[in-house]
Amino acid sequence: MAYQKLTSRSENYSQWYNELVVKADLAEQSAVRGCMVIKPYGYAIWERIQAGLDARFKQKGVQNAYFPLLIPKSFLSREAEHVEGFAKECAVVTHHRLMNDPNGRGVVVDPNARLEEELIIRPTSETIIWSTYKNWISSYRDLPILCNQWCNVMRWEMRTRLFLRTAEFLWQEGHTAHASKEEAEDFARQMLDVYAEFVESVMAIPVLKGVKSPNERFAGALNTYCIEAMMQDGKALQAGTSHFLGQNFAKSFDVTYLSKENKPEYVWATSWGVSTRLMGALIMTHSDDNGLVLPPHLAPIQVAIVPIFKQQEQLDTILATINPIADRLQTLGIRVKVDTADNMTPGFKFAEYEMRGVPVRLAIGARDIENGTIEVARRDTLTKETLPLEGIVEHITALLEEIQANIYQKALDFRLANTRNCDSWDEFQVEIQKGGFLACHWDGTPETEEKIKELTKATIRCIPLDAPAEEGKCIYSGKPSHQRVIFAIAY
Amino acid sequence: MAYQKLTSRSENYSQWYNELVVKADLAEQSAVRGCMVIKPYGYAIWERIQAGLDARFKQKGVQNAYFPLLIPKSFLSREAEHVEGFAKECAVVTHHRLMNDPNGRGVVVDPNARLEEELIIRPTSETIIWSTYKNWISSYRDLPILCNQWCNVMRWEMRTRLFLRTAEFLWQEGHTAHASKEEAEDFARQMLDVYAEFVESVMAIPVLKGVKSPNERFAGALNTYCIEAMMQDGKALQAGTSHFLGQNFAKSFDVTYLSKENKPEYVWATSWGVSTRLMGALIMTHSDDNGLVLPPHLAPIQVAIVPIFKQQEQLDTILATINPIADRLQTLGIRVKVDTADNMTPGFKFAEYEMRGVPVRLAIGARDIENGTIEVARRDTLTKETLPLEGIVEHITALLEEIQANIYQKALDFRLANTRNCDSWDEFQVEIQKGGFLACHWDGTPETEEKIKELTKATIRCIPLDAPAEEGKCIYSGKPSHQRVIFAIAY
Repeated sequence: MAYQKLTSRSENYSQWYNELVVKADLAEQSAVRGCMVIKPYGYAIWERIQAGLDARFKQKGVQNAYFPLLIPKSFLSREAEHVEGFAKECAVVTHHRLMNDPNGRGVVVDPNARLEEELIIRPTSETIIWSTYKNWISSYRDLPILCNQWCNVMRWEMRTRLFLRTAEFLWQEGHTAHASKEEAEDFARQMLDVYAEFVESVMAIPVLKGVKSPNERFAGALNTYCIEAMMQDGKALQAGTSHFLGQNFAKSFDVTYLSKENKPEYVWATSWGVSTRLMGALIMTHSDDNGLVLPPHLAPIQVAIVPIFKQQEQLDTILATINPIADRLQTLGIRVKVDTADNMTPGFKFAEYEMRGVPVRLAIGARDIENGTIEVARRDTLTKETLPLEGIVEHITALLEEIQANIYQKALDFRLANTRNCDSWDEFQVEIQKGGFLACHWDGTPETEEKIKELTKATIRCIPLDAPAEEGKCIYSGKPSHQRVIFAIAY
Repeated sequence: MAYQKLTSRSENYSQWYNELVVKADLAEQSAVRGCMVIKPYGYAIWERIQAGLDARFKQKGVQNAYFPLLIPKSFLSREAEHVEGFAKECAVVTHHRLMNDPNGRGVVVDPNARLEEELIIRPTSETIIWSTYKNWISSYRDLPILCNQWCNVMRWEMRTRLFLRTAEFLWQEGHTAHASKEEAEDFARQMLDVYAEFVESVMAIPVLKGVKSPNERFAGALNTYCIEAMMQDGKALQAGTSHFLGQNFAKSFDVTYLSKENKPEYVWATSWGVSTRLMGALIMTHSDDNGLVLPPHLAPIQVAIVPIFKQQEQLDTILATINPIADRLQTLGIRVKVDTADNMTPGFKFAEYEMRGVPVRLAIGARDIENGTIEVARRDTLTKETLPLEGIVEHITALLEEIQANIYQKALDFRLANTRNCDSWDEFQVEIQKGGFLACHWDGTPETEEKIKELTKATIRCIPLDAPAEEGKCIYSGKPSHQRVIFAIAY
């Protein structure tokens, strides 16, 4: 059993992605339409994303909690924009019992067990959470509330792709309640920074921080902050969002607090989330035609050590050299696997670690032991070198950081090379089809944005937070504009 | 705002429990019937249960994964006993879209969006997982598979109680696949030992390890191992189960492997789980009329330090003494909170930490600083003493272990005092109403077990693994029996 090669990215990027997800043992389709199985190796990566973010949330004073999976249908109607944006394509629970089929064919829904009010599987939890916060908040002393939950959600997507768009996905959703507008807005911004820092420093994915245009805002938000990444095919991927919700949900669920001045005031809200979609961003930022490439800060296995042996004696000799090295690496907090399995050839193991994106692979045989050397292979550059065993721990420690920096830089260079200004509508229509980010002037109206989307499929990915003021004319309408925004075709 | 007292346990145990769960900020009812909100403090305890178990699972070679929330209705019919046991009272998804009510009253289910086959929210995941394993297993080389998932499940319970019995709950479910019967049975036993070790050493809850009688077995299992705990009211609570499933699910989903001898064989299975029900066991094992009592090994906050001050200057002086102590405790891995909030009185804080079960509370004021002393209060015994600051770190470190041992011993003593042999049916009917465990002879038939349950509500909690062989006569039928089993009234 050897790995079949992946379809190359140049041949068919979409097929390459689909094959990689399955062959690197990350996820697969399940028997339920649009719902995926996240396989152990894929889940191990997700667990590391969870752990990294969770620690950062807790440093911000956020506490985890858990709210119900099901939401009463009537809750969805309370926030008008929210129901339009979210609640339509969703899984609806109508009954609470099955019974034996009177015709003896398995089980059928018991018609007598119809629910009085239908329940929706959460597509996002603002409504159920704000119905709960109503009971938690009475005074300014109860604020802020900073809660997060790690959970599953469902959105009945018509076209699904593993990690990128699935009917069920895993995510975290933070929901905070504040006494003032300023504090809420500031918190939404802080969480955007948390996301950007994590995604860049751990996942090695460079992101643009920005604000969404009104058309692309979260349904029910006054302002949506986002981080946008560029995939290898030049498409944009929204990697995380943080919303300033104003008092919309507080008003819908009648959540007020008594201020220090003893006046009732509506509460201010934020919500923010990232999902298993980040797995898709990870794959499409770094991987190559040989499989997954993982940044060392995220990789569940950072260093795989493959002893090359025929008999048990040889293995014992090699392990006597290898185990102390593995122990020293582990003591330094490096995640090492010594692969002593004897039912796979070294070549098969090499291919497996390559497909799974393990950053550094070491190989060592009897002759290496004699020579005091070891072979070191880098996943990012696919280069190998034979190095002395002496100093190998220090070398690997430095190498992991070098790989981390290298793949981040490579992704950043790619984004910079594929981000360009565009100042004419004719040029825009041609350039946008080549992929990448186009920095353009826009007149600020939803109508123009809609029209551009209709004609080219491109959307405004974000209005960058750090965009300099610059006078110009809208790419489409020619009306005046004061800064450039980022257009792209998006996942 | 001061804490209202709890109803006392002697007055109304059930009401005491319900009040404690809410007042200690562990959980509350949600707007959705039978579904709870797990509040941040309750969730922090659950997170520590998760972390402790997860590390132990991983030491056994178990990997986490994620399987779909929804299960096709037809899957449930495949394993006959399983559908009888589980699939009847469940949430049924029948539609995938809502639409605006033509009469303008919010949203309604879109009748055109009916699913071809109804989907069930998982009550447990054997069926969807074994339909997946079919694709993962072809050879003995693919075995064993040792997967676990942390997730939510739903069972449409008629009568619900926070943590003990809720429509939605959180749990972990491990699902393993093995080449041999012996290996599977052994693994099921190993996981029982993992549960018992964790629940006893971290949660300080003594448990009996045993096997379920056929009536109490998991639907679809050949053998169910369990850990049973005794609550303060003498009732039994099943704290965890580990099932040897034989080849039932492999046969239902046609999962075979080619053996070393190249012969197709059905795969052997186990499944095992614990849930947020453990929170109920925790509360009802240790807590008292003043609130929650937490074992130090589990407590999110092990030591709360309350400075007693009027002005900021006093606080600064106290902190100069306190902070180095808190730092040293933290360095030793002890979870400490220094509570400098100035909008609550010390008395209110004391009551709060008492209600929340924080094992050790320290209080220190200006006079203590002068005298070089600090007040140390133990939650388990509700005793206080004033001690010299010198050596306080060592004292607290030892005290936490002492409290851990003490509350375990107290619970064990209670169970021993309330476990007794019973050898006559007349006596049984009287004794069982007093609560506790009755060790009795039983003739081994489901009929007798059923009859006893019908007459007294008592069930066989387990056939203890370490029960000595002893000849006797069945408490009910008088037929011969070879060991005692444990009867109790259970949650």
